[in-house]
Amino acid sequence: MIRKSYLLSPGPTPVPEKVLAAASEPVLHHRTPEFSEVFLEVSEDLKYVFQTKNNVYILASSGTGAMEAAVVNTLSPGDKVITINGGKFGERWGNIGRAYSLNVHEIKLEWGEPFTGEQLSAELKKNPGVKAVFAVLSETSSGSVYDIKSYGEVTSKTSAILVVDAVSGMAAVPCPMDEWKIDVLVSCSQKAFMTPPGLAYISLGEKAWKMYETSKLPKFYFDLKKYKKNLEKATVPWTPAVSLIMQQKKSLKMIKSAGLENVHEHHRIMAEAVRAGVKALGLKLFSKCPGNVVTAIKVPEGIDGKKLVKVMQNKYGSYIAGGQDPYAGKLFRIAHLGYMGAFDMITALSALEMTLSELGYLLEPGISVAEAEKVIKENWK
Amino acid sequence: MIRKSYLLSPGPTPVPEKVLAAASEPVLHHRTPEFSEVFLEVSEDLKYVFQTKNNVYILASSGTGAMEAAVVNTLSPGDKVITINGGKFGERWGNIGRAYSLNVHEIKLEWGEPFTGEQLSAELKKNPGVKAVFAVLSETSSGSVYDIKSYGEVTSKTSAILVVDAVSGMAAVPCPMDEWKIDVLVSCSQKAFMTPPGLAYISLGEKAWKMYETSKLPKFYFDLKKYKKNLEKATVPWTPAVSLIMQQKKSLKMIKSAGLENVHEHHRIMAEAVRAGVKALGLKLFSKCPGNVVTAIKVPEGIDGKKLVKVMQNKYGSYIAGGQDPYAGKLFRIAHLGYMGAFDMITALSALEMTLSELGYLLEPGISVAEAEKVIKENWK
Repeated sequence: MIRKSYLLSPGPTPVPEKVLAAASEPVLHHRTPEFSEVFLEVSEDLKYVFQTKNNVYILASSGTGAMEAAVVNTLSPGDKVITINGGKFGERWGNIGRAYSLNVHEIKLEWGEPFTGEQLSAELKKNPGVKAVFAVLSETSSGSVYDIKSYGEVTSKTSAILVVDAVSGMAAVPCPMDEWKIDVLVSCSQKAFMTPPGLAYISLGEKAWKMYETSKLPKFYFDLKKYKKNLEKATVPWTPAVSLIMQQKKSLKMIKSAGLENVHEHHRIMAEAVRAGVKALGLKLFSKCPGNVVTAIKVPEGIDGKKLVKVMQNKYGSYIAGGQDPYAGKLFRIAHLGYMGAFDMITALSALEMTLSELGYLLEPGISVAEAEKVIKENWK
Repeated sequence: MIRKSYLLSPGPTPVPEKVLAAASEPVLHHRTPEFSEVFLEVSEDLKYVFQTKNNVYILASSGTGAMEAAVVNTLSPGDKVITINGGKFGERWGNIGRAYSLNVHEIKLEWGEPFTGEQLSAELKKNPGVKAVFAVLSETSSGSVYDIKSYGEVTSKTSAILVVDAVSGMAAVPCPMDEWKIDVLVSCSQKAFMTPPGLAYISLGEKAWKMYETSKLPKFYFDLKKYKKNLEKATVPWTPAVSLIMQQKKSLKMIKSAGLENVHEHHRIMAEAVRAGVKALGLKLFSKCPGNVVTAIKVPEGIDGKKLVKVMQNKYGSYIAGGQDPYAGKLFRIAHLGYMGAFDMITALSALEMTLSELGYLLEPGISVAEAEKVIKENWK
């Protein structure tokens, strides 16, 4: 048989063919009006997705680079900060903070456990003098989406800034920066932005820029004031990743022409289809606050979780993700993120049925697909 | 007329068509054996170009990110360092050093002025306790190539490390890391590596790794120990810029199949052809230590240097570079770097002749081309 591969993991996600093709165009020189035009268009379209009046800066880095930029541009050694750690990426905020000698108060949640604005409010009261709260919109390690809106309500009433890692969540689930009072928002190219990895995005509101002025952490490559100055000249301080920006232009146009709300709605439908499918198989969702980005599913009793992922990938070419760290082998994750359509979800469920059967799990073939079809049909537009 | 564009500037340089096309292939998931294979191949081929037994780490960043990585992975606040500033990029070493609270002893040269190993030796004697010497292989702002070999001879006899920015020089002119006793060597994808911008490369020798252990500068995204650990698992700590790495694989194969020495020889011939051409026009080279990467040429008396560059670009589609900072309008630069062939040099010279004529400079049409042809013909293989 001809082996086809299906990217069904939470990043890198499938890149639309015309976005791939854009990288075959000759690389524009980055100090020309032609490139400046592309650059400004992408910068503007990023503001549309971030739903902000603030500038969005384009870095040549992974998402982690933009997370680091959020830290070094606002804080000073010894600053007290709160990090909400509900998984790999929440944990990373703490690791970055400690690497930069911040006084990190880490709220360690069980993976998949929700955390409310009220809880955050209580933590802020218990810890006076906190300079920043670090949160994650979509924690891909556990398939959770947190209530960032409530964090904004709470944090905006204090002198602390709210910093949000929206790497996998942005453009998949709502996260309007200005309306939700987010002070620093971070994302990158390879998730719902439907572009290969290599670009990261960061936006700072006024409150965060004020903290820039007193921030004493050292910075150079990620020094956002340099990016701010250069944006006025329609460029960046260092050689930009031109071809990736040319690609990002194309995928942002796709998002804009569909309309951001419709893109969010698409992700909701895909997620509901997957959830309906896996529930029909008698499987259980892992997260108590599941989101529309990636669905984490508990590996059923008696099934080897690592083998499940291997068979899905190696035999059926369906690149889902396994569990990480404490949950390696205990959960698996199906993404419905970015350029994934209804029949990609059907593919995932069908491959999952065949895999589970093969591993000795009793199921009625087709049942998950049937349940997913219901959701898709009801919502098809 | 149909307008064709010619990239004749020192980066981004032209990307070979088959390297462009590689970015249209589906993006590999970065936690798969397929990607690991590509990744290890690129890592190995980078060692070939760096001429080193050390690992070469692949960062998702501009070259400046790798320069910063060189600083934060080896030094501590207050450390005394020497930076050799003969232009924009030598100056950058000082700027990064000061941003990280190093005690920077900057040797400020006239642009285009050489600096010898003997001079460095004297500086090191005058400044005991220097922890690192920061140099530039090819200073693109002035078209100079410095005598890194002699710096290695001198520095290796001290406790200081030699850190070299070879962003534009690597794979264009010789810079064998191990043989020349370079402790930290930095380059990136978009110059002689013939790949779009977005990847940076860095390699550390043993002496530099020893300094890592005592280095107190904060680091996270650029923390090379994380890269070292991940390389053992054939991956990187953060999502790599997969499509650029897939492209870099293709262009490294081109370099390897031509042979590194032949690639250097190619650059020598291109540079000599350009130098012969511009001399025939009565123009003067700017640098007293010109290299085979980019040729900086003085704008002749009575000619508007900024207009010269504009006419070259806008009318003839020949994207040469102007002068920077103090030399804006006073010099212009023709690159012969990466995927540029003999007839690209002829194009540059022909466009230059037509431009100069138009601006009122008296010349014999064809004379620069004739002189370049001589060089090319003599060396054609």
